[in-house]
Amino acid sequence: MENQKPDWRYRLHEIIYEADTPAGKLFDVILLIAILASILFVMLESVSSIDAKYHKELDIAEWVITILFSLEYIARIICVRKPFRYIFSFYGVIDFLSTIPKYLSLFLAGTHALVALRALRLLRVFRILKLARYLGASNHLANAIRASRAKIGVFLFAVLIACIIFGTIMYLIEGEDHGFTNIPKSVYWCIVTLTTVGFGDITPETPLGQFIAAIIMVLGYGIIAVPTGIVSAEYTKAAGKDEEELTKEELSGLTPIHLNTISCPNCLTNHHQDDAEFCFKCGQKLTDD
Amino acid sequence: MENQKPDWRYRLHEIIYEADTPAGKLFDVILLIAILASILFVMLESVSSIDAKYHKELDIAEWVITILFSLEYIARIICVRKPFRYIFSFYGVIDFLSTIPKYLSLFLAGTHALVALRALRLLRVFRILKLARYLGASNHLANAIRASRAKIGVFLFAVLIACIIFGTIMYLIEGEDHGFTNIPKSVYWCIVTLTTVGFGDITPETPLGQFIAAIIMVLGYGIIAVPTGIVSAEYTKAAGKDEEELTKEELSGLTPIHLNTISCPNCLTNHHQDDAEFCFKCGQKLTDD
Amino acid sequence: MENQKPDWRYRLHEIIYEADTPAGKLFDVILLIAILASILFVMLESVSSIDAKYHKELDIAEWVITILFSLEYIARIICVRKPFRYIFSFYGVIDFLSTIPKYLSLFLAGTHALVALRALRLLRVFRILKLARYLGASNHLANAIRASRAKIGVFLFAVLIACIIFGTIMYLIEGEDHGFTNIPKSVYWCIVTLTTVGFGDITPETPLGQFIAAIIMVLGYGIIAVPTGIVSAEYTKAAGKDEEELTKEELSGLTPIHLNTISCPNCLTNHHQDDAEFCFKCGQKLTDD
Amino acid sequence: MENQKPDWRYRLHEIIYEADTPAGKLFDVILLIAILASILFVMLESVSSIDAKYHKELDIAEWVITILFSLEYIARIICVRKPFRYIFSFYGVIDFLSTIPKYLSLFLAGTHALVALRALRLLRVFRILKLARYLGASNHLANAIRASRAKIGVFLFAVLIACIIFGTIMYLIEGEDHGFTNIPKSVYWCIVTLTTVGFGDITPETPLGQFIAAIIMVLGYGIIAVPTGIVSAEYTKAAGKDEEELTKEELSGLTPIHLNTISCPNCLTNHHQDDAEFCFKCGQKLTDD
Repeated sequence: MENQKPDWRYRLHEIIYEADTPAGKLFDVILLIAILASILFVMLESVSSIDAKYHKELDIAEWVITILFSLEYIARIICVRKPFRYIFSFYGVIDFLSTIPKYLSLFLAGTHALVALRALRLLRVFRILKLARYLGASNHLANAIRASRAKIGVFLFAVLIACIIFGTIMYLIEGEDHGFTNIPKSVYWCIVTLTTVGFGDITPETPLGQFIAAIIMVLGYGIIAVPTGIVSAEYTKAAGKDEEELTKEELSGLTPIHLNTISCPNCLTNHHQDDAEFCFKCGQKLTDD
Repeated sequence: MENQKPDWRYRLHEIIYEADTPAGKLFDVILLIAILASILFVMLESVSSIDAKYHKELDIAEWVITILFSLEYIARIICVRKPFRYIFSFYGVIDFLSTIPKYLSLFLAGTHALVALRALRLLRVFRILKLARYLGASNHLANAIRASRAKIGVFLFAVLIACIIFGTIMYLIEGEDHGFTNIPKSVYWCIVTLTTVGFGDITPETPLGQFIAAIIMVLGYGIIAVPTGIVSAEYTKAAGKDEEELTKEELSGLTPIHLNTISCPNCLTNHHQDDAEFCFKCGQKLTDD
Repeated sequence: MENQKPDWRYRLHEIIYEADTPAGKLFDVILLIAILASILFVMLESVSSIDAKYHKELDIAEWVITILFSLEYIARIICVRKPFRYIFSFYGVIDFLSTIPKYLSLFLAGTHALVALRALRLLRVFRILKLARYLGASNHLANAIRASRAKIGVFLFAVLIACIIFGTIMYLIEGEDHGFTNIPKSVYWCIVTLTTVGFGDITPETPLGQFIAAIIMVLGYGIIAVPTGIVSAEYTKAAGKDEEELTKEELSGLTPIHLNTISCPNCLTNHHQDDAEFCFKCGQKLTDD
Repeated sequence: MENQKPDWRYRLHEIIYEADTPAGKLFDVILLIAILASILFVMLESVSSIDAKYHKELDIAEWVITILFSLEYIARIICVRKPFRYIFSFYGVIDFLSTIPKYLSLFLAGTHALVALRALRLLRVFRILKLARYLGASNHLANAIRASRAKIGVFLFAVLIACIIFGTIMYLIEGEDHGFTNIPKSVYWCIVTLTTVGFGDITPETPLGQFIAAIIMVLGYGIIAVPTGIVSAEYTKAAGKDEEELTKEELSGLTPIHLNTISCPNCLTNHHQDDAEFCFKCGQKLTDD
């Protein structure tokens, strides 16, 4: 009972951490706009031509954002019962990293660029927009990904081992003269090739190297079928299970075009489209307003 | 009843906007050829070696096309009861943009290149060939795409956020010396890499940058399974549903309703049912008999 | 009855066009080896370092192949009742193109490179190895591809139109200074980008161009789900239909490890693997030989 | 009976080749760490800046690893009854290749780089971690891949033939001036393009070459649907089969039989069933009790 005392900290907590009250929703919307604005300012500032023109304005805008984020950070700490839990949580660290570089830049030159870490706050967008929950509504996709995760993990592990082995072989074949300066770089090239990205900054030049490269490419092109196959099969399974639980009523609602139940008062024709205002059979007005 | 007077404007409307009469079909075929020819001329003119040789011929051909398109544009305006609705519609704007640059080029130098906007008229090809309807015949694909749209949208949104975050991190790691001159460019690079396009105009050169790049690539290579899995599962579901014995009730809900190509001569509304005699939007009679 | 007279032409026909007799099979194997050898010789000859060393040997080898192919070509014409039907058939034209350039090179300089057209004969490999028939054994894949063909065609047509429109827009935005010298080249770049190949020989350099490029990439990355989804759903459907027709007996045969029905004569243990020679329970020899 | 004498060689065999005893598990863990460490040392040594600083330390570390691997190699030979069977087995050759280059480097300059072949030992990781068995737990994926293997093989064979034909055509069109110096290189370029890797080291420059290239790309982009479709359909089928009510008879045919990690000390045969007490290949007793 004593926990329910609606003091100002309780209220603040409700506004900041919850989204079911009008104030909470408003806070979320403002936070969302502030995050997007902060990303925009950081982006614009990084473009030298824009920075040269509007340096002062961008600096002021960033200070405003920084102070807003600082206030939010302090508020989050104050209104939580176990502040350290928030401070060392994933979002707590991100929130800290998104404010501190601006203050540091007053004392230490070169730290200003770290303001860009603010981009990490974009992750909050998922939380605010409840996208995860949106996807979870039908839950098929989430189930499919959960069921596939371990297998795709093993698949990617196998891909990595293949890249290390092929990378080492390519290092031996091509050597430092053709850009394969060391094994880590060679493994990097192998990942670039197997994932079919293919930058072209390093390319094999010996016939044998090109032959091995062709094998890596065909391998990468062929095995993409494995994770894709897993996810689609798991999704089919998850969706199929759900399907069986649907009643006939629900099934009959899956019409591609929504037809309403209005009958024409003149000719009694049915199956009018939802936005119909006149009977498509006799021209009679359907709705009265 | 007074709406049914089949004057010349009504006839013109039938020819231009509908495809169920011989004249309407002929008009569509001519329009299709004219569009394809106009694209061809614009392409040929952009090739400097061909333009040097046949400049005059191409200029004449383009004027012929422009005048034809202008006449069509005027005809479309005249024969519609509410011209502004057409003018400011999607296709209306495209039709306008495909004629005006040629006229402008008489007065303003440099505007001639905009003639290329004519390529947008290609979108009409879908309408004329009724490709959408062709796909819709079985309707599985359309249903699968419709069912997947929202999820693929969220997926692409998540990909975009990942690109912004990774792009910012790469900007901090690689810096301006290695081509990551600003954050927008860095995000662009990240999209190039994650979608496995990999131009190679910008490439990471520090070991840490290459390590992050490898993560982005493997991520892009792995998560392609998600949209693919969604579409194939939804398509399997849509196709499977069709297979099952559908009750008549369910059938009436699931069968695609045949919509014809008639546009209302009064308000331009489309998607009338095949047996419609009056516009369901404004009550205008659709057919003359 | 008179058609059945097994004269030499009939025999020749049986050997060349059929593969069910020992002679026919032998002919196919020799032809297969000859085709592969001819490709190898053409490839080796194109490598200047090898050609410099072994020019004479390769020339002789090619003449041998050419004469063999010529004899085969003549034999095919002779033993067929309607020679013109073969001559103007797909394979007939290829067979002609694979012999004539070598003869032409005696009179006309520069035509020798066309010997490489011999590579087209590789298509016969499919026929000889009966790969199509192999795939067709279960017939699911063939059915799935047949059912998907039209839809994938429309899909690729839509991709092409998108490439023309985006290519034209990129030409207007980037212009000739950044490598988008004309619209066809710009459309080519667009195909390179949308299919996620990304050579990097032409890359957008203006911010707006890079923005449009990013849209094209994400589009290409996202819509690959469409053909993939179609094929896997159609294949699932085709395979599922077949499944229903399988008897239980067939189902019980789908064991991952083949266990035989031998019981150990010593301890009567069952479920020995197919290649077992000793009982895994008591060490008793299972087979007598 | 005489085969069952648990001498030191038998014990060693148990430790090295089996993983069911504490000593065997410890050996596996140490081996795993040694393999990963050896890869790390080889990688670090290949980076010239690190090698310059820590050459001596890395050399010592490599000698330690080499001696450990040599001891393991000798132990493996000693404790097996038929040593030549191990020596000429796949893993036996890899184990030999991972130790010998270091010794060779004492006498022959330039052979040191071959130490990198040690990366091949990574393949043992799969065996030690029993990843194959992990995937096999549900066995759907393994079945799906097994069922798809032949079809994907034929698919890749068809892709290869297409690459040879298109590669030859591109060699004729583009010629040596544009980087298509010979047919093998041209085929290599074609594989790079069709698999959507697209390095960009060689790019077509003639309009016709770019047109053919566009066809190759669209082909590569479109047919990726085939292997993906096969795997997902086979996986759906394998997973679906499991869902259905299986009769006991069917179950006994479909359930994966648990095979243990024991290798026969006499003939090195693997894949004994969990309850096996004697080798099914040579009758040797497997366990001591």
